[in-house]
Amino acid sequence: MKFGHFDDKAREYVIETPKTPYPWINYLGKNDFFSIISNTAGGYAFYKDARLRRLTRYRYNNVPLDSNGRYFYITDGSVTWNPAWQPCQTSLDSYECHHGFGYTRFLASKNGLKSDLLFFVPDSYNVEVQMLTLKNDAKESKKISLVSFVEWCLYNAQDDGTNFQRNFSTGEVEIEGSVIYHRTEYRERRNHFAFYSVNSKIDGFDTDRESFLGLYNSLSSPQSVVDGNSKNSIADGWSPIASHRIEVELKPGEEKTYVFLLGYVENPENEKFAPDSENKNLLRTNSASHPINKTRAYEIQNAFSTKEKVLESFDSLKKSWDEILSKFTLQTGDEKIDRMALWNQYQCVVTYNFARSASYFESGIGRGIGFRDTSQDMLGVIHSLPAKRLRERLYDVAATQFEDGSAYHQFQPLTKRGNADIGSNFNDDPLWLILGVGNYIKESGDKDFLNIQVPFDNDEKNTATMYEHLKRSYRYITEHKGPHGLPLIGRADWNDCLNLNCFSKNPNDSFQTCTNKDGKNAESVMIAQMFVFVTPDYVQMCRLMGDEAEAKRAE
Amino acid sequence: MKFGHFDDKAREYVIETPKTPYPWINYLGKNDFFSIISNTAGGYAFYKDARLRRLTRYRYNNVPLDSNGRYFYITDGSVTWNPAWQPCQTSLDSYECHHGFGYTRFLASKNGLKSDLLFFVPDSYNVEVQMLTLKNDAKESKKISLVSFVEWCLYNAQDDGTNFQRNFSTGEVEIEGSVIYHRTEYRERRNHFAFYSVNSKIDGFDTDRESFLGLYNSLSSPQSVVDGNSKNSIADGWSPIASHRIEVELKPGEEKTYVFLLGYVENPENEKFAPDSENKNLLRTNSASHPINKTRAYEIQNAFSTKEKVLESFDSLKKSWDEILSKFTLQTGDEKIDRMALWNQYQCVVTYNFARSASYFESGIGRGIGFRDTSQDMLGVIHSLPAKRLRERLYDVAATQFEDGSAYHQFQPLTKRGNADIGSNFNDDPLWLILGVGNYIKESGDKDFLNIQVPFDNDEKNTATMYEHLKRSYRYITEHKGPHGLPLIGRADWNDCLNLNCFSKNPNDSFQTCTNKDGKNAESVMIAQMFVFVTPDYVQMCRLMGDEAEAKRAE
Repeated sequence: MKFGHFDDKAREYVIETPKTPYPWINYLGKNDFFSIISNTAGGYAFYKDARLRRLTRYRYNNVPLDSNGRYFYITDGSVTWNPAWQPCQTSLDSYECHHGFGYTRFLASKNGLKSDLLFFVPDSYNVEVQMLTLKNDAKESKKISLVSFVEWCLYNAQDDGTNFQRNFSTGEVEIEGSVIYHRTEYRERRNHFAFYSVNSKIDGFDTDRESFLGLYNSLSSPQSVVDGNSKNSIADGWSPIASHRIEVELKPGEEKTYVFLLGYVENPENEKFAPDSENKNLLRTNSASHPINKTRAYEIQNAFSTKEKVLESFDSLKKSWDEILSKFTLQTGDEKIDRMALWNQYQCVVTYNFARSASYFESGIGRGIGFRDTSQDMLGVIHSLPAKRLRERLYDVAATQFEDGSAYHQFQPLTKRGNADIGSNFNDDPLWLILGVGNYIKESGDKDFLNIQVPFDNDEKNTATMYEHLKRSYRYITEHKGPHGLPLIGRADWNDCLNLNCFSKNPNDSFQTCTNKDGKNAESVMIAQMFVFVTPDYVQMCRLMGDEAEAKRAE
Repeated sequence: MKFGHFDDKAREYVIETPKTPYPWINYLGKNDFFSIISNTAGGYAFYKDARLRRLTRYRYNNVPLDSNGRYFYITDGSVTWNPAWQPCQTSLDSYECHHGFGYTRFLASKNGLKSDLLFFVPDSYNVEVQMLTLKNDAKESKKISLVSFVEWCLYNAQDDGTNFQRNFSTGEVEIEGSVIYHRTEYRERRNHFAFYSVNSKIDGFDTDRESFLGLYNSLSSPQSVVDGNSKNSIADGWSPIASHRIEVELKPGEEKTYVFLLGYVENPENEKFAPDSENKNLLRTNSASHPINKTRAYEIQNAFSTKEKVLESFDSLKKSWDEILSKFTLQTGDEKIDRMALWNQYQCVVTYNFARSASYFESGIGRGIGFRDTSQDMLGVIHSLPAKRLRERLYDVAATQFEDGSAYHQFQPLTKRGNADIGSNFNDDPLWLILGVGNYIKESGDKDFLNIQVPFDNDEKNTATMYEHLKRSYRYITEHKGPHGLPLIGRADWNDCLNLNCFSKNPNDSFQTCTNKDGKNAESVMIAQMFVFVTPDYVQMCRLMGDEAEAKRAE
């Protein structure tokens, strides 16, 4: 079975059918704003943290597969279809999904109407840009209804899917012109909001899911789409969404382009609100009180207000990826090997950026960033990513370390605090910090990094140099040995599934967090090997620091 | 708008359309096995605990609303329909949903075929009985395909919806004759399993969701139903389901009855497995190793193997409800008031049985049983439920109390252990125990209950009499007073939403678990009033115990 091909010239993977065996996903964003997007536009967006700051709602393990996403409903005569096939599943005359570096593009056509839909997250702003071009290739003029749809998540993805008693009462929106603002909890504790905009006048909107969908409809037949008119609904609790309606007329050969933006904004505490007089320019949930200060949202909307600006930003994104992926290239004469060298690097950078905290199978709820994981992932990007980014992550990792050299196994990317639920005592963790920092310095020569002050357990009042952190790591291993003189495994080593100290008989225990043995005996050959492996790096860093005594001890 | 009516004679509420504004739910089971069932057969089953022992999968806040449930697909010629309308939503010639006391019955018809589908959970076994009668009212013979469907939950509902890295690898099944066994993790830590059976030969089955549904199909058009043949799929990880296929032939006027059972079984540790030789009688996931010892499952299957046995059990369930609801009745001449006196009691008993831990809006994940909630809910059922049941719950509640008289605010019904996540310090909690026990004794005269030994914090080695627990409760209030001599509120009083000591500015905090103030000042008038209200009960119990000194102090 073949579902697509590499376009080496365009540096894209082109999927030729929406019905892949599973959704085939791309990852957008490399700084703070991230999106997951499948080959049918399924997926979701989040800011920094897929658990604590989820922007749109996604339903993992749902039926049908891969719902929901950012959907555009195109009604042309009696047929409604989507440029990315889902959720209507109307069979298309042509379909292609192009997964590129940091962007995904859908080319489709139905009954003489062509769509070109581009998704990307630029480096410069916290926004997912969605640019849709519709072209009439038929011989007659067409009158088309275009309806957009995203469903807001109430920020905390775990809470969003379980605590309905509370969160069905919190949803709030503002609508100003063509921009729908998701301001849930903004009146209270949040200084951030999201918006969904389009650079065009609209002919209707919806912000309440039930109004948009109708009572028992699925996403394949929203009532607003079926009826041919939006309900101009204003969400008040329940499930807020954002949907625009644009009535489009296209002469034969004519094309029109629309820029939709899914944006995220944080305001300083003292700049949260606009004057109440601005309420007269907008529609809003009754209880919403003071209007959001939208200055920063306008900046984003202005930055992408035309097709030209979008293309310029897209071009600069492509260049930034070319830069990242140009550090190491291969021309072997075998296109498959060359291609692998390129795409593997892309995968490594994405893995590093997303830190495995969210994917199509990782719900974004179960874990944050792994201490071990991100340290090892760094080894794959150390030559391609800017030093600043690597330093920041290594700092965040080291800052979750305890004074004794052990560490939280995971931390949340938003708060950067260690995850107390999963806790500590994965005894290979300390060595990964040495390996990560050591390799970073070997690549960058940035030995000053060893001198920066880094907290223990995120306590800014209790800091030590990065070098001291490495010493604590090293010491933790040498001071936690078992009966044969090998390092104790603690809760687990790199092979998390061994869990040598876990003999839980209670099915309600998580394997990973079960520590019902004292851990005085079980040793890890893997940690011992790793200890041997990282020692030369460690010794080298000791010498960089002029700490000959420690270098000697370690040798 | 009118969606249904009370049938006072049958003691049922009859819903006349599947398209109610929201799913209208009934609650089945009153001992250990519980089900939630909507007027379109949506909902799920669990054993004791909706979080830790969920048997079938349900998707809260889904689109379309209220999926999934236990579904029967009837294909009659070119039309496929469901006796409870969902998920095909095929328009029916007639539809009624009868919510009765502890059961729900669907009467429907389409193109001359009538269905009568009864759901109930008997008192005697851990099983949801589903009895479906099909009758051919047409003048021609009919050949019908009947396909059943439930989707297994992997027991821990929280994990089931988030931890795919692990749980997509764990699903295991056995199929023996017409019985599909859900044996996920049975080989490892679990001594329990579930099954879905029918008392008839089957013409096919499915146990793997993707095989049953097809890649991108929704529940309204499973591939196995569309194709007219089941795939005989054997789940190995991913999403195990249970689906039977029965080809039914009905002559004009003929009817056939099928008994489907959704059962739950626990085996003693040393009786978990049957001899390996029994593997030859069954189909199973490759890795499933030793076959389940099914003796206890056979008992259930045998107890409901015929229509007659089902009707007998159903009759005894109805009698047991009549008994419960006969303790207090009203004949005022106003049917609405009389009806309210009856149905309110039903609601009270259901609230008490389910302990608010699961409903259509309570996901069953966010909380267990509330210390306060269940104590107060008891006041509504104290006259109707057997003393044994009330005693057990009061014991469970008191056993989560700490030595100082405070208590966990919630506990899990399966483990009966306090919920450490939500913690303690809801300062009205201690008084609810006095109110609950006091009222129980006033109603029952069971003063010996004050002498039973009850643990603190579930520690069986640290117990005291129930009376001592009450004294600790009382003392907790009198020893935690604020500047005006009123009881301190702690984290909250009955009005959880006041949270007087909570001034979280961090949107990632839960309001309820935030304790960022020391709580030395904020007092609760409500707790003070409650203190005055419960004191006479307390004094009375002191005197029952001959503790005149304490009675005097309290007076």
